[in-house]
Amino acid sequence: MVGFWHRLGTKGKALYSATLSPPFSSPLTLPHIWVPTQTPNRPLSSGFHRATGQTRSAAEIMSGKPIAKDIKLRVAAEISRMKAAIGRLPGLAMVLVGYREDSHAYVHIKLKACNEVGIETSIVQLPQDCTQDRLIDVVSSFNSNPSVHGIIVQLPLPEHLDEETIINFVSPEKDVDGFHPLNMGNLALRGREPLFIPCAPKACIELLLRYRVEIIGKNAVVIGRSKIAGLSTSLLLQRHHATVSTLHSFTNNPEQITRRADIIVSDVGIPNIVRCDWLMPGAVVVDMGTNSVKDPNSPRGFRTTGDVCYEEAIKVVSAITPVPGGVGPVVISMLLSNTLDSAKRAYGFT
Amino acid sequence: MVGFWHRLGTKGKALYSATLSPPFSSPLTLPHIWVPTQTPNRPLSSGFHRATGQTRSAAEIMSGKPIAKDIKLRVAAEISRMKAAIGRLPGLAMVLVGYREDSHAYVHIKLKACNEVGIETSIVQLPQDCTQDRLIDVVSSFNSNPSVHGIIVQLPLPEHLDEETIINFVSPEKDVDGFHPLNMGNLALRGREPLFIPCAPKACIELLLRYRVEIIGKNAVVIGRSKIAGLSTSLLLQRHHATVSTLHSFTNNPEQITRRADIIVSDVGIPNIVRCDWLMPGAVVVDMGTNSVKDPNSPRGFRTTGDVCYEEAIKVVSAITPVPGGVGPVVISMLLSNTLDSAKRAYGFT
Repeated sequence: MVGFWHRLGTKGKALYSATLSPPFSSPLTLPHIWVPTQTPNRPLSSGFHRATGQTRSAAEIMSGKPIAKDIKLRVAAEISRMKAAIGRLPGLAMVLVGYREDSHAYVHIKLKACNEVGIETSIVQLPQDCTQDRLIDVVSSFNSNPSVHGIIVQLPLPEHLDEETIINFVSPEKDVDGFHPLNMGNLALRGREPLFIPCAPKACIELLLRYRVEIIGKNAVVIGRSKIAGLSTSLLLQRHHATVSTLHSFTNNPEQITRRADIIVSDVGIPNIVRCDWLMPGAVVVDMGTNSVKDPNSPRGFRTTGDVCYEEAIKVVSAITPVPGGVGPVVISMLLSNTLDSAKRAYGFT
Repeated sequence: MVGFWHRLGTKGKALYSATLSPPFSSPLTLPHIWVPTQTPNRPLSSGFHRATGQTRSAAEIMSGKPIAKDIKLRVAAEISRMKAAIGRLPGLAMVLVGYREDSHAYVHIKLKACNEVGIETSIVQLPQDCTQDRLIDVVSSFNSNPSVHGIIVQLPLPEHLDEETIINFVSPEKDVDGFHPLNMGNLALRGREPLFIPCAPKACIELLLRYRVEIIGKNAVVIGRSKIAGLSTSLLLQRHHATVSTLHSFTNNPEQITRRADIIVSDVGIPNIVRCDWLMPGAVVVDMGTNSVKDPNSPRGFRTTGDVCYEEAIKVVSAITPVPGGVGPVVISMLLSNTLDSAKRAYGFT
């Protein structure tokens, strides 16, 4: 059957390494990149676990922090090199409408990270009741500003503003979030290369590659289909030749489907929805959930948790990202990387 | 669990009926559309078949011919109405490079269908060794020609021409094939509406809707991921809230995954690759394969066959499209419908 099947051809290389600048490419081609020291070619679930019927007592925790640190160092080094060579810095512009606690927290994290690596930032904050035209004016001025290489419109927007119209106005050349339909279409279409891939799926793939999780030919299940994470991760995993199933709110018996997955990516937004009986022993889990739950023991009165019941999952899976400290830090570093890539493209700097 | 799950929200309506002009919408809202008389709400596989352990001896054959005929009649009526009201006709332009037997056959079929419904057509045929610039010139001239509402660059192109560059040049407003990345991105992104959806996935959904196959929440497997059929069908089925798994040349044991599917769409291009043991009893099969196989008994020396071993499948499935006469005729009628939609948009005719 393999013989038949492979006659189909395999047009379309894995996208991720092809579109990133060389320093951020796959660890397999760049062995000097940081990788965990104790994970030689991960044996994925199918096979050894089910064969022995045993469950692991200790899953590997795929921390994103050392990866994020490594990427930031590399971005900072590239920015220094660019500054020395052409006297320019990358610039990131952010637009905020109204006040939302979470949006401001995210913007704060982005600002801090940009500052660490040497990316110039501008922020425009508009009042909650600003008009769509005013917001478009701001985006347009960033579009035409040559020292701005990345534009982020912080989502969600107030309901009277049309998110799609606004995102359409962001120049695809400065769409570091990767949400413009042109970039999304080029992500979906094999053989094409979007100018930007959204940061969350890039972070997911980066984690899998750095922890040496094989993707090609594996059964991957993505729970959720937001453009920010689920949908774009489905598309990017498929570009890496995983067999991808996308689950969503209309899926019946999602746990039956996740139980067959070698790789599970969760983008649901409900704490602990993924329980141990959703997971195949030995599976690899990337938890993209960032949920606030009340916690009287925390100084802030709440703590952040993922979609996956971590305490249960670590007894079953072979590897899992923690929340916080898993996908999150890598997502931010990918934003820095996208902004750097954009500036290098704009200045023709290689 | 459903309670939890549905808290996710369901932003994004089913796309198909929302983007088509009313006369081509779902039969459920437009009962005057032709539907087969003997198919009250199809009982999908899960449940009755597996419960009884029985297999059906007679699958329903989902012929595309009556559907295509119905759509053509409606398109023709709309064109007459437009002509009477504003004195304009839709126009479709086709560009062919070199000579390929199959491409000429397809163009011939399209020409004939356009003629039947009253769409004006132009064809430009360029020599096999034409330059990319020359081809782009031709596309550009159609882009700026106000009496052209749809442009088809017949694929595949000779190897020296870059298909992606050419498709990028087709105006998204005239991209009746739906292959432009902007349209594909808007197909992928829930809540957005592409100007055009590719004809093959539209035909697939049309067949399922007309034969009253429930899509929402069903497990759908699409075998193959071409932009023409597989990829775009995966995206459109997902917009209709199926749980979609996309298989491809790197998928291991594809038959294990197809055996769990309520709906199977095949876009492989290998005759008879899908055998009866790939199919769950009671499943619904849409066969998009169009393969030429040698047949000394045929006057032409060959016959057209699908990807699915039809003789085996009809003993197992509850419904299946034949090849030829299934998806194919509906695809052509969708091209007519897309071209009409484009002309109506261009003239502001409703």
